[in-house]
Amino acid sequence: MESDLKNITSFVGQSYGPWSVLSIKTIVGKGLSLSSSMDIVKDISVEKSENTNWVLKGFTSNLRYTNRPEKIVLDQQPSVLGKPENTFAAFIPIKKNAEWWLLTQDERRKIMAENSKHIEIGTKYLSAISRQLFHSRDIGEEFDFLTWFEFSPNNRERFDELIFLLRKTEEWKYVEREVDVRLKKK
Amino acid sequence: MESDLKNITSFVGQSYGPWSVLSIKTIVGKGLSLSSSMDIVKDISVEKSENTNWVLKGFTSNLRYTNRPEKIVLDQQPSVLGKPENTFAAFIPIKKNAEWWLLTQDERRKIMAENSKHIEIGTKYLSAISRQLFHSRDIGEEFDFLTWFEFSPNNRERFDELIFLLRKTEEWKYVEREVDVRLKKK
Repeated sequence: MESDLKNITSFVGQSYGPWSVLSIKTIVGKGLSLSSSMDIVKDISVEKSENTNWVLKGFTSNLRYTNRPEKIVLDQQPSVLGKPENTFAAFIPIKKNAEWWLLTQDERRKIMAENSKHIEIGTKYLSAISRQLFHSRDIGEEFDFLTWFEFSPNNRERFDELIFLLRKTEEWKYVEREVDVRLKKK
Repeated sequence: MESDLKNITSFVGQSYGPWSVLSIKTIVGKGLSLSSSMDIVKDISVEKSENTNWVLKGFTSNLRYTNRPEKIVLDQQPSVLGKPENTFAAFIPIKKNAEWWLLTQDERRKIMAENSKHIEIGTKYLSAISRQLFHSRDIGEEFDFLTWFEFSPNNRERFDELIFLLRKTEEWKYVEREVDVRLKKK
């Protein structure tokens, strides 16, 4: 029976689809199997089959950590996906460890915002890099978050810089699985 | 095709199931159709059919507002569902308005914890009333939250008192739809 659940997006690694996979790099933990292409489908009913290498699902949500001053800055440069010039993309699924999830909301916020400056770092790259966060943990998926970024060929180095800075933060010490998939629009 | 999504619970209003429906009261907004019984199924694939009056789905998640001192208090009296003496229950689906969801995390926390004392009020009833919160908004359901409470016959008035106090808070001004379903174990 097909489910009627809405707001679930499936990222499907397979041999066809609008995105060519340039590389799949395991940063920490178990990797993802090789796949030549990827499709993004707003449909919960896509299942792993002999034609797919992996299917990862997530949903968009309200902002869970951002405060008002940060929100004002974010709203000044809204993230727009699908811009024609943004022909490069990165798909980075992440799983944080049990220790992270045992922290309370205020403790997680302190590590993210104050100690790691996650929001502050990200804000500097808003105009160059469009992004969308998908949540996976709550629906029992193997990753906690699926992060999706789009950028132009000129901004590939800017993106590498952003990711480099984020991986050095205190917050990233809680990441126990991370795979970095780079893609190019066909 | 059946979905493999885990951690989704379905609350099913129908003519059979382990819980007898005692009453369905619309507190605000659109109600729910009458149903003589209810079942709770940890299965995403239950769909509305001619045999069901309604199917509401949600997932459990990490605590999104609680700070460490509050968590310590909560952990001292963990909520245990399914106690044999808790033969009465309440199922209260809630939808908050757009204004609530435009607030940032710190603003929602301030209204809940400081102005409304939601957590403080709830804490006083922990030993008498077991409860579990399910999230629905993120999966595109018609309600934002499904709240489930279990208590003994002796604690029915205590539960009414708890709900009365919560409905008087500033937080409840953001509730645009609420239905109060009372149940008894068969």
